[in-house]
Amino acid sequence: MLKDLDPVLNQQIRLAIVSLLIKVNKADFNYLKEKTKTTQGNLSHQLKKLKEVEYINITKTFERNYPKTYCSLTSKGKKAFEEYVIQMKKYLNPS
Amino acid sequence: MLKDLDPVLNQQIRLAIVSLLIKVNKADFNYLKEKTKTTQGNLSHQLKKLKEVEYINITKTFERNYPKTYCSLTSKGKKAFEEYVIQMKKYLNPS
Repeated sequence: MLKDLDPVLNQQIRLAIVSLLIKVNKADFNYLKEKTKTTQGNLSHQLKKLKEVEYINITKTFERNYPKTYCSLTSKGKKAFEEYVIQMKKYLNPS
Repeated sequence: MLKDLDPVLNQQIRLAIVSLLIKVNKADFNYLKEKTKTTQGNLSHQLKKLKEVEYINITKTFERNYPKTYCSLTSKGKKAFEEYVIQMKKYLNPS
């Protein structure tokens, strides 16, 4: 039986963000912007949503006087992604 | 690089419909309704959308005086699903 997919992750940009963070552990805003090919405004919006549900941490800092925003997955976010993978695979490989 | 996912299939009920049709070739409305656990209205709406983009065929017929609606995938729909699987797997298995 096909189960409901996590609505937070069932959105392309948010899924891409979490997928990237699974791979690199920590990423800054510009890296995510380049990889997801979305606008600054939309990326900010989706990151805020991921933070609200505690899937990611956001750390703001300064490097050489420039502001830097780093994102990383929480254990809750990692678990949500793993569960999403399991459920989505059932949609992709009907048996 | 993560590519855009087909927006038609990147919706849970439509993906479930196409995933079921990949498996069974032909399915009637009630079977899809039971499997997707959605309402009659929503299922009709999503089937109409899949038909509009020519991913499925819809055949209306009568069996023992009862109307029956059968759905099946077109070759375009099958290709779209296969492409979606390829792209989604890149999101699920970041490398």
